[in-house]
Amino acid sequence: MPKQVDHEKRRRQIAEATWRLISTEGIEQATVRKIAQEAGLSLGALRHYFATQDELLRFSMELVSERAQQRITTIFEQGGPPKQVLLDVLLEVLPYKEEYQLEMSVWFQFMMAAYRSKTDTGTDDIFRMCLVLLERLPAGTLRDGIDVRLEAERLAALIDGLAFHALFRPERLTKDRLKTILVHHLNTIFQS
Amino acid sequence: MPKQVDHEKRRRQIAEATWRLISTEGIEQATVRKIAQEAGLSLGALRHYFATQDELLRFSMELVSERAQQRITTIFEQGGPPKQVLLDVLLEVLPYKEEYQLEMSVWFQFMMAAYRSKTDTGTDDIFRMCLVLLERLPAGTLRDGIDVRLEAERLAALIDGLAFHALFRPERLTKDRLKTILVHHLNTIFQS
Repeated sequence: MPKQVDHEKRRRQIAEATWRLISTEGIEQATVRKIAQEAGLSLGALRHYFATQDELLRFSMELVSERAQQRITTIFEQGGPPKQVLLDVLLEVLPYKEEYQLEMSVWFQFMMAAYRSKTDTGTDDIFRMCLVLLERLPAGTLRDGIDVRLEAERLAALIDGLAFHALFRPERLTKDRLKTILVHHLNTIFQS
Repeated sequence: MPKQVDHEKRRRQIAEATWRLISTEGIEQATVRKIAQEAGLSLGALRHYFATQDELLRFSMELVSERAQQRITTIFEQGGPPKQVLLDVLLEVLPYKEEYQLEMSVWFQFMMAAYRSKTDTGTDDIFRMCLVLLERLPAGTLRDGIDVRLEAERLAALIDGLAFHALFRPERLTKDRLKTILVHHLNTIFQS
């Protein structure tokens, strides 16, 4: 494996160790020392990949977005009817698989930390994604008289609300249930 | 003021100091020592009102629910058309006033802490409230063929999603905007 690839791969492994620590203990507990331990590295080795804790946390947060973005890009590349593509994309940001639950819980914790520190990285991502997705639909796809911006705000709130509830009630909000709710919602705004 | 009332009032003041600390620094930083400082009490005086940190945090969390519950009860007592009452109740759990923003951010942080510690106090409150509110509507209020449970799940997700987004984007999700979105949503499930 080329050295550069190995370096990047190791950075991702460290970010994933960071996720696990944040998920179980919270962001405040995610010190460089504990992350090194979780990743099975010495503190010196960790410093080789991330000079500061800030850099490590920022990379770990960006990796959550990046992973979701990759899954979404794959769906767009596969193509299909607009409503189906939209549904599949929205399902990708919901924590219906165990691995996404980890990402989602880490994401919410990053959001709350951003709120406390009055920064706003990423806090409007879901809304902006929903707005772009609805605006780019072919003409005549949505029902007549639909207010696209309002529907984007409603859809974004629904998605993040479902994601939040699914974290706590995975037995109630199964993948099938999340899909049923989303399909129903899209039916109310799509022509057919 | 009777002694018992004074004792209870002081407990609430300490809980509010706890909220401020949690909101700005996170739950992990809400130590008994820091809370005492924020509340302007000695550690010994604080111990008089709360024997343990656990008791203090639990009381602080329950006070968030209790405050929202009080506001909701007032609305029910005022009465009115079912749709208007439902709208007013839902608006009460959204952080459109500065004081509710503090409560809401504290609530989300308690939720994430509950997630990490695998407890589930309060994590399904909004859903259960929505279910009860929709189930108790007079017959013929909702559109024909409505699946009440599914609508309760959708409404609960919308509410928590809007609450979450309004925390980060108060300038986008103003009180008027939140109301517009909710009215639109209710229009899609009510007969008229």
